[in-house]
Amino acid sequence: MMLPVALDAMGGDNAPGEIVAGAHRAVAELGVPVVLVGQPEVLEPLADGLEIIAASEVIPMSADPGSSVRRMKDSSLVRAAEAVRDGRASAMISAGNTGATMASALLRMGRIKGVARPAIATPIPVPGGDPTILLDAGANAECQPDWLLQFAQMGAVFARSRYGIEQPRVGLLSIGEEASKGTPLVKETNALLAASEALQAAGGIFIGNVEGRDVMTNDVDVVVTDGFTGNVVLKTLEGGMRALVNAIFASFGTTPETQAASEVLIPALLPLYGTLDPDNTGGAMLLGVDGLCLISHGSSSATAVVNAIRVAAELHEAGIVERLRTAVASG
Amino acid sequence: MMLPVALDAMGGDNAPGEIVAGAHRAVAELGVPVVLVGQPEVLEPLADGLEIIAASEVIPMSADPGSSVRRMKDSSLVRAAEAVRDGRASAMISAGNTGATMASALLRMGRIKGVARPAIATPIPVPGGDPTILLDAGANAECQPDWLLQFAQMGAVFARSRYGIEQPRVGLLSIGEEASKGTPLVKETNALLAASEALQAAGGIFIGNVEGRDVMTNDVDVVVTDGFTGNVVLKTLEGGMRALVNAIFASFGTTPETQAASEVLIPALLPLYGTLDPDNTGGAMLLGVDGLCLISHGSSSATAVVNAIRVAAELHEAGIVERLRTAVASG
Repeated sequence: MMLPVALDAMGGDNAPGEIVAGAHRAVAELGVPVVLVGQPEVLEPLADGLEIIAASEVIPMSADPGSSVRRMKDSSLVRAAEAVRDGRASAMISAGNTGATMASALLRMGRIKGVARPAIATPIPVPGGDPTILLDAGANAECQPDWLLQFAQMGAVFARSRYGIEQPRVGLLSIGEEASKGTPLVKETNALLAASEALQAAGGIFIGNVEGRDVMTNDVDVVVTDGFTGNVVLKTLEGGMRALVNAIFASFGTTPETQAASEVLIPALLPLYGTLDPDNTGGAMLLGVDGLCLISHGSSSATAVVNAIRVAAELHEAGIVERLRTAVASG
Repeated sequence: MMLPVALDAMGGDNAPGEIVAGAHRAVAELGVPVVLVGQPEVLEPLADGLEIIAASEVIPMSADPGSSVRRMKDSSLVRAAEAVRDGRASAMISAGNTGATMASALLRMGRIKGVARPAIATPIPVPGGDPTILLDAGANAECQPDWLLQFAQMGAVFARSRYGIEQPRVGLLSIGEEASKGTPLVKETNALLAASEALQAAGGIFIGNVEGRDVMTNDVDVVVTDGFTGNVVLKTLEGGMRALVNAIFASFGTTPETQAASEVLIPALLPLYGTLDPDNTGGAMLLGVDGLCLISHGSSSATAVVNAIRVAAELHEAGIVERLRTAVASG
């Protein structure tokens, strides 16, 4: 029988209510076993038969990641990471403090042998296609060329495991397509990637530099960048999409006529809205730690939790950690 | 009488037709004098009374900026920059090769005394408000903290001159609001900006770090970053907006009913469409060179040219180069 997914029931803006509700739905709808991790006195009234791993502490959303993980050894995040390390869970999922989630996974599970730095791989929705995998989306503000090469390998493995893309096209984010453009980091990484057999061994194809305008298109499957640039891209798109969607909805309410017309249109817009809704992406994955760790966004609803649990089960089934191990060992 | 604006009539995807058409409209609609710069044999049939500064060469859109500017001394870009330097024009405008435009302005006009590096200041449209000024949008892939401090000063002067914002709020782009977040460049710049009286002297208020999600909001007037990150942000927003707008229009055509409803809605969406249309922003300004240089996007229409000429005249009238000189001298 499949090991349960360890769900940090205390993390996220809507914890524990929406998180536990998502766990129940995942068990019922997907048949994936889930174990809740957190304070028993909070979770027992909600558990309704779900197993609980007790953890007396909760790392706040805004706490400093490194020090809180070191200090709060009985926190839900640390206990969830230990459950994966100890073979009691197939994966950990949290919608809580992202930095503390990374730190817990890294300190408790350790890195896959040969991995220089773990990276956050975040799916960026693309209307009418598979999401583009962006990494690093924020784990390492400063990077070295050989780390980015590993991100490319790991991103290719993720795109294959997650979306079944046979030969993921990997692009290096820069400010021009020419290999001569960009920072020294980008130029050195471009040369490494162009010469790399390791990326090919991981199933990926290097298509050269890509630009910001390519991220939300079907022209590239994996976009590699440092964690500073990646995080800026992610949040810029979030803010831009929100600004545009809000402005469109405001326009819909201009007159009674536009209001009526928009009621006809909204059903046609729902699929697009669904594509863009972060609750539907199934979360980001921390690639490079020696275990499966998914990061769901802070405002995750029960639906976001169900989707993250589904993705965790699929990635576990696909043996992603073993695949990452093989890919990194070959490079 | 006002000096004419020197318009590179040979630069841009739609040159010379749309560029010259824009010049005629600007003269007629705005009363701003314009001189065309370019090949006489091409421009004379179109000029219809407009003055021409002869230049026998055209720097292609894709040419290497530095070498082409050094080699093509009789190019329209170099001649336009010389016209500003020599006091024969109030400003130069080009929709051609951005790098070559920068190089021409820098080599012919020189820098304002004390400016370490010129930066491109690009207005990012914000629905329902003034655009946010993003700089550097691509002139310097790698930056130093004291350069970013100057970008902040110059950006504040630009926001005041361009949009009449009395005390522009200046944010430093990072991956968290805390001063401790980000790269060493960001941390050092944050400390410089927080302590800077020079920014206050330039009329700006430092509001601390901002994130990508703040760029398209009214929470900040000037966003300062290095040219790599700035260019990635600009192009990411471009691509994201295009993807979303295309997907929305595709949804409108789903059924005859949605098609009919969308025809009611499109007039209500036009103001938003106008806000987002890069033809309406009036172009980016190269801040820090000793003269007025506006960069219009490559696919500029006649309308984009009219708007750039209007902005050039307004900025000249506001004495922006003198204001920049004063601000930089005080810091």
